[in-house]
Amino acid sequence: MANENYEQVLNLLLEAINSGKNGGAPAGIPVGVSNHHIHLSQADQDKLFGPGYQLTSIKDLSQPGQFACKETVTIVGPKGAIEKIRVLGPVRKQTQVEILAGDGFKLGVKAPARLSGDLAGTPGITIVGPKGSVQIPEGVIVAQRHVHMLPQEAAQYGVKDGDIVSLKVDGPRGGTLDNVAIRATSTSALECHVDTEEANAFGMSSATKVTIVK
Amino acid sequence: MANENYEQVLNLLLEAINSGKNGGAPAGIPVGVSNHHIHLSQADQDKLFGPGYQLTSIKDLSQPGQFACKETVTIVGPKGAIEKIRVLGPVRKQTQVEILAGDGFKLGVKAPARLSGDLAGTPGITIVGPKGSVQIPEGVIVAQRHVHMLPQEAAQYGVKDGDIVSLKVDGPRGGTLDNVAIRATSTSALECHVDTEEANAFGMSSATKVTIVK
Repeated sequence: MANENYEQVLNLLLEAINSGKNGGAPAGIPVGVSNHHIHLSQADQDKLFGPGYQLTSIKDLSQPGQFACKETVTIVGPKGAIEKIRVLGPVRKQTQVEILAGDGFKLGVKAPARLSGDLAGTPGITIVGPKGSVQIPEGVIVAQRHVHMLPQEAAQYGVKDGDIVSLKVDGPRGGTLDNVAIRATSTSALECHVDTEEANAFGMSSATKVTIVK
Repeated sequence: MANENYEQVLNLLLEAINSGKNGGAPAGIPVGVSNHHIHLSQADQDKLFGPGYQLTSIKDLSQPGQFACKETVTIVGPKGAIEKIRVLGPVRKQTQVEILAGDGFKLGVKAPARLSGDLAGTPGITIVGPKGSVQIPEGVIVAQRHVHMLPQEAAQYGVKDGDIVSLKVDGPRGGTLDNVAIRATSTSALECHVDTEEANAFGMSSATKVTIVK
């Protein structure tokens, strides 16, 4: 065999050894922890920051094309306000505010646990930026925990897009999270998304790996 | 039979019917949600509020003899301070500060999940009251979730003091909490104690009931 063939055989052997380390199951899933944040529509961004304003990316997020911005806004509900809500880019079709369940008490807003984009019937809120404010009629949610993955990774884990699974978390505050949605698309990076309250309750950090249980 | 005998038989039948509703298992356990709070030693209370100061109870807590006070203190760590930490009475042998995991990041204090009273090796903090401040060398914990119950209730649930169990929570953010300690004493009232981050992560409120799974 030529040298490149030896290398190919070695790589295949290494892959087989690594996939067998966990009893043949795919490896644990990395965790991404989100604090409250906001996605803006172009129209709302124009009102809050001025027409033609360009958001400043300060950090690429794990999902391809998504980024955290320097810009923040204040959200105001009937009971209170929360400042420094981070804007995530790029702009979306509809403005979406993802709060923590605890924020809901401060704001006086009852936000349901929903997947991104599933905003029908959710409560609205007032958003204040440096150049103006908007009152959205709906769009406030608590993010339903979910796992991003490629369709081929879903096949490895024995799940498919839209499935609802449970996730096992180890550690002193470990346990099982039910009702976790699988989001398998060709532009996904493998990661389980939880919010800071879920991460704190389970003792999870960005170093934690979780396991799918069905 | 005399009338009181009929009544006794009826009550026994009712009890049997009710205990059978859940497949013979005892009923679900009510949940008590705690925000961050502090228990003070007499010496520390004297320094913070002045010698001879009497705490003002504003609410009896579910555990007999325990109460929430009008008084609050500020706790200060290397990275930040948190105001309005509620004092719970009565005084204890050693001052104990129970924070949320999220508070630990704000304060810059790495508090382990511990049961009440198990303070050896935990971090200290500065506590500021209206008449003075104290720097405790240890005593900051995140409360390990636990279930208070009477020994006879423990027997019904098939557990005993000191056991570690898991708790099943239903609902859209449901799941299972592992590493839950059973605290069965003759002065306990049946209640599962979690903190606000755990309650928010699991969608639990004071109306939630949880089930022991082993």
